[in-house]
Amino acid sequence: MGADQVQLYAARAIGMVASDIRALFAVASRPEVVSLAGGMPSTSALPIEVLSRLLAEVVTERGPVALQYGSGQGDPELREQICEVMGVEGIHADPDDVVVTVGSQHALDLTTKVLVDPGDIVLVESPAYIGALSTFASYQADVVHLPGDEHGLLPAAVTEALAATAAADRRVKFLYTVPNFANPSGVTLVAHRRDEIAEICRRAGVLVVEDNPYGLLRLDGEPVPPIRARHPDVLYLGSFSKTLAPGLRVGWALAPPPLRSKLVLAAEAAMLCHPNLCQLTVTRYLVTEPWLDHVKAVRELYWERREAMLSALSTALPEGCWWNRPHGGFFVWLGLPPGLDSMAMLPGAIRAGVAYVPGTGFFADGSGRQFLRLSYSYPDPDDIGEGVRRLAGVIRGAL
Amino acid sequence: MGADQVQLYAARAIGMVASDIRALFAVASRPEVVSLAGGMPSTSALPIEVLSRLLAEVVTERGPVALQYGSGQGDPELREQICEVMGVEGIHADPDDVVVTVGSQHALDLTTKVLVDPGDIVLVESPAYIGALSTFASYQADVVHLPGDEHGLLPAAVTEALAATAAADRRVKFLYTVPNFANPSGVTLVAHRRDEIAEICRRAGVLVVEDNPYGLLRLDGEPVPPIRARHPDVLYLGSFSKTLAPGLRVGWALAPPPLRSKLVLAAEAAMLCHPNLCQLTVTRYLVTEPWLDHVKAVRELYWERREAMLSALSTALPEGCWWNRPHGGFFVWLGLPPGLDSMAMLPGAIRAGVAYVPGTGFFADGSGRQFLRLSYSYPDPDDIGEGVRRLAGVIRGAL
Repeated sequence: MGADQVQLYAARAIGMVASDIRALFAVASRPEVVSLAGGMPSTSALPIEVLSRLLAEVVTERGPVALQYGSGQGDPELREQICEVMGVEGIHADPDDVVVTVGSQHALDLTTKVLVDPGDIVLVESPAYIGALSTFASYQADVVHLPGDEHGLLPAAVTEALAATAAADRRVKFLYTVPNFANPSGVTLVAHRRDEIAEICRRAGVLVVEDNPYGLLRLDGEPVPPIRARHPDVLYLGSFSKTLAPGLRVGWALAPPPLRSKLVLAAEAAMLCHPNLCQLTVTRYLVTEPWLDHVKAVRELYWERREAMLSALSTALPEGCWWNRPHGGFFVWLGLPPGLDSMAMLPGAIRAGVAYVPGTGFFADGSGRQFLRLSYSYPDPDDIGEGVRRLAGVIRGAL
Repeated sequence: MGADQVQLYAARAIGMVASDIRALFAVASRPEVVSLAGGMPSTSALPIEVLSRLLAEVVTERGPVALQYGSGQGDPELREQICEVMGVEGIHADPDDVVVTVGSQHALDLTTKVLVDPGDIVLVESPAYIGALSTFASYQADVVHLPGDEHGLLPAAVTEALAATAAADRRVKFLYTVPNFANPSGVTLVAHRRDEIAEICRRAGVLVVEDNPYGLLRLDGEPVPPIRARHPDVLYLGSFSKTLAPGLRVGWALAPPPLRSKLVLAAEAAMLCHPNLCQLTVTRYLVTEPWLDHVKAVRELYWERREAMLSALSTALPEGCWWNRPHGGFFVWLGLPPGLDSMAMLPGAIRAGVAYVPGTGFFADGSGRQFLRLSYSYPDPDDIGEGVRRLAGVIRGAL
């Protein structure tokens, strides 16, 4: 394919470019660098022995199904089990309305494919999940960030944005939100705002897309039911990547029926079907193992890591830095003293042996240089402490 | 989501509708129906015991990698092995240019996403793979079918179509072809036409997308090298679904570097990464098992089934029917006597205990009622014979 063939690309592909931080992260994977960057679950949280046994059983006992093509919507027994999992958080759902996807990322991709024409508006939080922004960009959505505070998205901001877009004769397709322990802000949306936002969107004919990968990983405080628990017109996305294992790539969408039918057709056009092997293994895990006990153990692991990070931040960081205390999930969102730039600081940080994600990735317009995301999910507590101390040195150096 | 929210759908989703034959196929899965419809590999062709052992080994020995997130492009060792597999058919490739996907269907989806704007033209064979047509429709491509004969696509038809589209000021993005034992026609494109078509497309600045899931499943005659073997500017799609197991959903694209970079970004936006578990298992299978011996055994299995089908067709079908003799792959394409309609015949056929795919699914304009696709890959030889005899009864009844 010659340079002259670049004209072959679709308009939506023009914006698909590798980010600046990609090359840096290749360096950051060296063992001497403490990575507070990636949002990967801890290796200790992966039930390796159990899954090794279950996989062998699934192939031995159900090989002709596990290794064959499956349905575009996903295995019926898995969809039943997924409803049980959602039930733990208070969602009542019909397995017929579940679509199994390659992680919840793929559910978001299919949702965007089915709903978004180029130039349509998608409303998101500030900051917003970097992977969602990539997906929205890949379908040429116009992303509008909405302000929030320590209790999450502001309902008044949703109302205002809807009025502004209506006045500009622009079409809003959906509001995308991670209401529990958001990536990257760590913020949780308070209960009454969940209802208000759902109601505001309903009145405006705008779908709410609720992405809840961390909901079961609450580390303290009282659980807040997902928006979908009280608002069945919400499109809900879930995942086993944080509670079981990302390498199985099992996520799902729970969708109102007409939209669900479109998602199934889109899934078939995209990949025919999800790997049956992974689906049957997750099903067997949920049916035969005490999976909620595993989730509890994983919570304790992350609780310890979060404490290690918060304690190191308090001890080591210079004045002028501020951060939130997340009640669950994987992330701390760090604000730098005025004038500092997390993107400019990154090469030096990696030289100093610590990696993070600059805030710019979480804003569609590339703002957010005064912020950075720290993850406590993957490194162990000692490494977290060391990583934060190195980061503190970098920040002091930049001041 | 109320009926009023259907206006939320993107334009590309309007055409995503369940086909008429979906409901019929639900009935066709009853055990008393011989299905000559699906293109699934034989259960006997799945190396169940080997994969059960390898999966347990992979998770036990490499659990922290197998169960974790991986790279968007795919496991480097798997990409090396994929180059070895392509080497068997005469393709020399760099692992850097391989992108691992959820079956080759997903590679085709990402390719279309990166290349096709609404209204762009995609050239295809007549008939063409039903799953490709779904993917092209899901990105609002305009599909133009090109005529062929028993030796495959006619180069003159490609030239003519390119001239016609240029005259109409329409943009052709790529030519999609399954040159070996095509689905559904069973036809193989002769060598000299491969070169001619690649050259014609190159001159016109049109990409050739070569989909070769059946290449290693030649049942007789001399292998013809893939187009990609002599034309490195071709985008090549491969799959382990027919030679190993579809339930692992491991396929790939081999792409010229600029396009490959876009495909990786599109893959990340779509699903972050392919299931590492499946990738590492396929890698281990290729490295440690005599996989070409398995392919040879599978070929013998399908040879026997093809013979069973061809022999039953010759014996049972009434005059006026005609069909091809495929040299590999899974499919026979059957032409009915004038006036018969494979879609209209289908409910009666299912009542008579045999299922097939009506020809209409393989033409973007819904033509092809005088044809149907028969697959010999899944039922055993006795069932194939019985299925064909039942089909013969249905055709006689319709005459």
